[in-house]
Amino acid sequence: MSKESSKKEEQGITVKKSENISEWYTQVIQKAELLEYTDVSGCMIYRPRAYAIWEKIQQFLDGEIKKLGVQNSYFPIFIPEKLLTKEKEHVEGFAPEVAWVTHGGNSKLNERLAVRPTSETIMYDAYAKWIRSHRDLPLKLNQWNNVVRWEFKHPTPFLRGREFLWQEGHTAFAAKQEADKEVLDILELYRQVFEDYLAVPVILGKKTEEEKFAGADYSMSAETLTPSGKAVQACTSHHLGQRFAKSFDIEFLDEKGNKAYPYQNSWGISTRSIGAMIIYHGDDKGLVLPPKVAPLQVVIVPILFDDSKKKVLEESAKLVKQFEKAGISVKLDNREGYTAGWKFNEWELKGVCIRIELGPKDLEKKQAIVVRRDNNKKEAVKLDDIVKFASKELEQMQKDMFEKAKKWMSENTVHVGTVEKLIEAVNQHKMAVIEWDKAKNRIDEIKEKAAGKCLNLPFKEYFMIDKEDKEYAIFAKSY
Amino acid sequence: MSKESSKKEEQGITVKKSENISEWYTQVIQKAELLEYTDVSGCMIYRPRAYAIWEKIQQFLDGEIKKLGVQNSYFPIFIPEKLLTKEKEHVEGFAPEVAWVTHGGNSKLNERLAVRPTSETIMYDAYAKWIRSHRDLPLKLNQWNNVVRWEFKHPTPFLRGREFLWQEGHTAFAAKQEADKEVLDILELYRQVFEDYLAVPVILGKKTEEEKFAGADYSMSAETLTPSGKAVQACTSHHLGQRFAKSFDIEFLDEKGNKAYPYQNSWGISTRSIGAMIIYHGDDKGLVLPPKVAPLQVVIVPILFDDSKKKVLEESAKLVKQFEKAGISVKLDNREGYTAGWKFNEWELKGVCIRIELGPKDLEKKQAIVVRRDNNKKEAVKLDDIVKFASKELEQMQKDMFEKAKKWMSENTVHVGTVEKLIEAVNQHKMAVIEWDKAKNRIDEIKEKAAGKCLNLPFKEYFMIDKEDKEYAIFAKSY
Repeated sequence: MSKESSKKEEQGITVKKSENISEWYTQVIQKAELLEYTDVSGCMIYRPRAYAIWEKIQQFLDGEIKKLGVQNSYFPIFIPEKLLTKEKEHVEGFAPEVAWVTHGGNSKLNERLAVRPTSETIMYDAYAKWIRSHRDLPLKLNQWNNVVRWEFKHPTPFLRGREFLWQEGHTAFAAKQEADKEVLDILELYRQVFEDYLAVPVILGKKTEEEKFAGADYSMSAETLTPSGKAVQACTSHHLGQRFAKSFDIEFLDEKGNKAYPYQNSWGISTRSIGAMIIYHGDDKGLVLPPKVAPLQVVIVPILFDDSKKKVLEESAKLVKQFEKAGISVKLDNREGYTAGWKFNEWELKGVCIRIELGPKDLEKKQAIVVRRDNNKKEAVKLDDIVKFASKELEQMQKDMFEKAKKWMSENTVHVGTVEKLIEAVNQHKMAVIEWDKAKNRIDEIKEKAAGKCLNLPFKEYFMIDKEDKEYAIFAKSY
Repeated sequence: MSKESSKKEEQGITVKKSENISEWYTQVIQKAELLEYTDVSGCMIYRPRAYAIWEKIQQFLDGEIKKLGVQNSYFPIFIPEKLLTKEKEHVEGFAPEVAWVTHGGNSKLNERLAVRPTSETIMYDAYAKWIRSHRDLPLKLNQWNNVVRWEFKHPTPFLRGREFLWQEGHTAFAAKQEADKEVLDILELYRQVFEDYLAVPVILGKKTEEEKFAGADYSMSAETLTPSGKAVQACTSHHLGQRFAKSFDIEFLDEKGNKAYPYQNSWGISTRSIGAMIIYHGDDKGLVLPPKVAPLQVVIVPILFDDSKKKVLEESAKLVKQFEKAGISVKLDNREGYTAGWKFNEWELKGVCIRIELGPKDLEKKQAIVVRRDNNKKEAVKLDDIVKFASKELEQMQKDMFEKAKKWMSENTVHVGTVEKLIEAVNQHKMAVIEWDKAKNRIDEIKEKAAGKCLNLPFKEYFMIDKEDKEYAIFAKSY
C-alpha cells in the first residue's frame, strides 16, 4: 500500500482554492493533464484533455457560423513587414509583440516576416483582389488557427501566453447596418459558448475608445469576473468601419456603378475561454467540467473482489454499451493495481461529470451508486434506470453550474457611486459598476490605485434598473 | 452581351490540359478559386473551396484515428534550436529548410526558435516527462496543424510550398510488433483517403534507405504517378525504432520492473494530397471533384423566362429541400444578370459534380436535365425520381473516377528489365518498375539521365506476378 498512498499524495491538489487560487490553478492545469510547460516561456502544450474541450467549442461554433454563411479558409502564418505596417493604428497595437522570422535555412531574408498576431493585414490584401463588385459581397471568411503575441508579461496558462489557438472571422459588407448587425449576432454566439457550454456568465458591452481593438471603429466584448477576483476578456467582435478598406484599397462597384468601400468586421474567441471556465468551476479536488464540454461524461468504477469480479465486470460492460447507445461518453476503469478510492480521486481530479460505482452488493440489489462531480450528490439507482437518470443529471448539472457561477458573479459585483468606492471595491477583488461619466476622466487614477481597468460599457439589459438614460461601465482587475 | 462574353473569356481555362499541363494546373488553381498567391513565395491562401476539401479529408481521417485510440493535442509552433538538434540524423534532414525566429518585438531572443518543420523533437521532449511506466503506453497523440519548410525549389501550388497543413501522428509502444502493426494500419487509412475519397490510385511500399525520413528506422509511403508524368509522395508512415527515445531519454519501467525504451512511430498526410487529385481529374473545362470530397455536389440552374419564372423557381426550391433532406449538398443558382450558359461554365470550372437544368419546357414534362461533370452524361429525369437518380449517379461517379484514374496509371506504368530501359521510360514520363537489385547501385545515374528517383519498394501485392522472391522498385520523375 505504501506505493499507492504515495501516489495518492502526488495525485491530488495540495492547496485549497480559497487559500491560494493562483497556486491551486497551476496545480489543476498540470495534475488534471490539461497543459504542459515547455522550454519556451509562454508556449504551452495543449494535452488531449484540454484540446478535447476546444474541439467541443469548435464543433458548436463552427456549425453556427456556417449557418450564417461564413466559410472556413486558411491564410499564411507569415505576414511581410510592409503589409503589417500598412494600417497605422493597427501596427502600433501589435508591433511591440511580434515574433519576427529573419532567416530561412542559412539565408537571411530580404524582408522580415511577422508570425501572425492576427490576420487582418494579410487577409485584406487578398480581399482587395477578390472584391470588385457588390455581387462579391458580403464576403465572410473564418480561420481556425494559431497566433503568436510575444508578450513580456508573466504568462498564465490559457489566459496569457505567447501562442494560442482561436478562430478569427473577417467579413466585408456593402452596407454599414449589415456589418453592425453581424457584430451583435456573433457576440450572441459567443455568449452562448460561454453561458450555455462553459457555464461561465458574461457581461456583453462596448469597449471604451482606449481599450478597443487597434484599428477598429468600435469593439464589443464579453467580460467575466472569475473567482480569482480578476476579470477575463472572453472574446471580442469588432466593427472596423472602412478604415482597413481604405488602407488596403478594397473597393467595389455598387449597384448604381459607383465606387465604394465595404464595411468590415473581425471577431475572435480563443483558448483563453477554457481558462476562465477552469477557475470558475474547479474545486479543492480538481477540475469540474460542464457536461456539454467534458471530454468524458461518465466513468464506471467497478468494485472488484475475486469471487464476484467476473459478474461485476460483465454488468459494467453492459452499462458502457447502454451509455454509448445514448450518446453519452463513458469509460470503464477496469485497471488492475489501483484501489477504487485511488480511481475516485483521479476521476474527480480530471473532472469527469458522473461516477458510477458498481460492487457485488450493489449488483445483488440490481443497483449502482451514482455520484455527481459538481455537488457530490450520491444516489443508489436501479441499473435499468441508470442511463436515463444520468442523462437527466447531466442536463441538470449543466444548468446548476451556470446558475451557481452567475450567482457568484452577481454577489461579487457592486454598484458604486464614486471613484473612491470603485477603487475600494476593485481592491477587494470585486467587479464595480459605475456611471461612465463619473469614471471616464479618472482611468489612470483607477489603474494606479487599484490596478483595475474598464472592462466594457455594458449593454442596457445589464444593471440599467432605474436610470435608463445613463451609460454605465464595469471595472475590475484583469488577467 | 459583350460584357457577358468578355466575362466568359476570363472565366474559362485558356489552355488544354494535354498541351501544357503545368499552365493548365496554375489556371485551374486560381480560376476555380482554390488557392491565391501572396507576396511570400511558397505561402499560399487556402480559399474556401480548397479548405472545404481538406475538411472532408479531416472528417474521415479524424474519426478513423480516434477509433484506433489516437487523441488530438496541440504543441507549440516554436522549437528551441537545442531541441531540434538533439537527434543528429533528424536535424541534418531538416535544418537547411528551417525558418528561424530571432526577435520578439524589439528584443533579440537568447536562443533562435525554429518554426516547426515537423514536431518530433518538441513532442518527444514532453513524452520523456509523461512516459514512466508500461501503464503509460501506448501513447498515441495527433496534431492537425501548420508546418513550415523553407524550401528553395520552385514552389508548386499544393504540391511544393513553404507552409502547408497536415496531421502528424506520434505514437509510442512498449513492443516493436505493436508499432510495426500501426505503421501499416495507418498506411491503410491513408490508402482509403486517396483511393476511396480522392479517387487517386496509390502504390504502397517501403522507402529506400536513401529516401527514408530523417531519423527513421524505416518509412512506408503511398505514391502515385499523376498525368503530368510526375509522381507525388502522397503520405508517409514511419517507424522510428528506439532512436528518438534514446536521444530524448524516453524510458519506462516494463512489467518486470526493468528499464526500457519505447518504440515510436510518426505519420502524416498533408494538403499535397489535394494537388494530386486536381491533376488527376481536372479537364479542359476545369476542376472535376470526386463526390465524397466535393464541397458542393449538386447545382440547380433554372432557365428563366419572364412568364414562367415564378413556377420554375418554386419547383427549383422544392428540389433544394429534397436534396438537403437526403444529405446531398446543393445550391440553387438564381442569380440575375448571368445567362444559363455562363452559369454552366462557372460550375463546370469549379467542379460541381452534378448540374440540374430546369426550364419551362422541362417543367411541362415534369422532368429536369441532369448532367454529370466527369463524363458529361446528360439525361432527362422525372422530377419525382431526381434525388434518387442523382444519389446513385454520385456513387457511380466516385467509382468511375477512381477506375479511370487507376486504368490511366496502369497504362503508364512499364516493367523494365534494364536501367537503360528505365531511363527511357522515365524520360517518357512513365512510372517504371524494375528489380531492385538491378537498380540499387545506379541511383545517381538515373537521377542524372532521367531526373527520376526511386519512389518506393512496393509491397508484394503490387507487380509481383511471377518472381515472388524478388524485390521490386518504382521510379519516376517527381514533384
